[in-house]
Amino acid sequence: MRNILFTIQFDGTNYHGFQVQQDVPTVQAEFQRAIVKTLGKRYDIKGCSRTDSGVHADGYRISMLTDTPIPNEKIIRILNYNLPWDIAVKQAVNVPEDFHARYSATGKEYTYRIFNSGKKDVFNYRYAYQYYPHIDEELLHQEAQLFVGTHDFSSFCTKTSLVEDPVRTIRRIDVVRNGKEVLITVEGDGFLHNMVRIIVGTLIGVNKGKIEQGEIVQILENKCRRHKGVTAPAKGLCLTQVYYPNLVEGN
Amino acid sequence: MRNILFTIQFDGTNYHGFQVQQDVPTVQAEFQRAIVKTLGKRYDIKGCSRTDSGVHADGYRISMLTDTPIPNEKIIRILNYNLPWDIAVKQAVNVPEDFHARYSATGKEYTYRIFNSGKKDVFNYRYAYQYYPHIDEELLHQEAQLFVGTHDFSSFCTKTSLVEDPVRTIRRIDVVRNGKEVLITVEGDGFLHNMVRIIVGTLIGVNKGKIEQGEIVQILENKCRRHKGVTAPAKGLCLTQVYYPNLVEGN
Repeated sequence: MRNILFTIQFDGTNYHGFQVQQDVPTVQAEFQRAIVKTLGKRYDIKGCSRTDSGVHADGYRISMLTDTPIPNEKIIRILNYNLPWDIAVKQAVNVPEDFHARYSATGKEYTYRIFNSGKKDVFNYRYAYQYYPHIDEELLHQEAQLFVGTHDFSSFCTKTSLVEDPVRTIRRIDVVRNGKEVLITVEGDGFLHNMVRIIVGTLIGVNKGKIEQGEIVQILENKCRRHKGVTAPAKGLCLTQVYYPNLVEGN
Repeated sequence: MRNILFTIQFDGTNYHGFQVQQDVPTVQAEFQRAIVKTLGKRYDIKGCSRTDSGVHADGYRISMLTDTPIPNEKIIRILNYNLPWDIAVKQAVNVPEDFHARYSATGKEYTYRIFNSGKKDVFNYRYAYQYYPHIDEELLHQEAQLFVGTHDFSSFCTKTSLVEDPVRTIRRIDVVRNGKEVLITVEGDGFLHNMVRIIVGTLIGVNKGKIEQGEIVQILENKCRRHKGVTAPAKGLCLTQVYYPNLVEGN
């Protein structure tokens, strides 16, 4: 047996997230189908995380135990041919048998992209939230630092996930302007349901003046989703990195 | 009466080109519908050109005679609200009454975008032709100069347009690499049906070695579409400029 770790990208627009669900298109279902076509037989695949409907990924990871003799380079080529246009394999490497795309991960990075030109723009619609009023990225970067550290993030998750332990650690959050776009990058050990999108919506609230400077401290302490920070649209969000520090990647 | 010249952009993926046709979605039909919603009444609009199914535009022009008293800035705002996400108005200026978006134009520029990273890439799929083998942009730029000047372009148009006068002038053609993408920019007084896409397909043929260096001269002289240059996919093509040299644009 060998264990292959795939790095893939997908345009999430047409999918109800990664994880298989009945009667709706998912990335996992498409990937499973392509694996059967490519290797002639079904192997279980393990994704690194769920991901919401409409969210994109440029560094998603999947691990798969398999007894196929086909070399990784060839698997990548045939898989990419068998996958639809909106899912692509970037890399495939062999990893130890006990490696698991989800449980071996020690952290993830998400990037939220806001197109902030002040004007409607059709070519920057699909992979960004189009937000017209000017964003003060320096102010938002400063306020965003209030999220860094280990906190109970109950105020930053949707009700459906109340059963989980709501404590997470954010290691780094950066708000940077790149011309007409503002990029918000968040790295943490894990994320609650909608957590990054509510963090972004809360920062937008600070930009609007609806949420005061420093108020994020209070919102965290309240441990309650009922605050003025909205959930930013899914299409601006992209899973960009998954961290496996103990992994020596080899072919 | 005043005559408004609109500069618009559109993602052509979901449209059968600009011009109204029965039973299929077109940019013109959407724009007409949005005008009625915005101004409360129908005004005829004149587009600067047809454009094929699936072709994009970032500087398309429309002229419209109207008696509306609404200022241009407000028309832009309400129109953008009433238009679908894939059509946007960038500018609206008043022009002389005898101005016509199509007949007053003295030239156009198209840009053809090829994503040439050697790998499948989902985020560069929609607005580019994904071509995997490496493109020698310097060779293609050199060969492309054979198109410059006034020629009978019968070899570079689809049969359906055989009735037209096939003589056109290409003023400039540039093949430039910008990182992972190759951009082919063509400026001319006018273009036959599929002309830019067949020019691009022919240059790709030169890159493949299926068409020899210098052979473009012969292909032009043959005045016949039956040659090895294919028609490059619509999604890589974008109308980027329309030239109205005698126009003093004012608000």
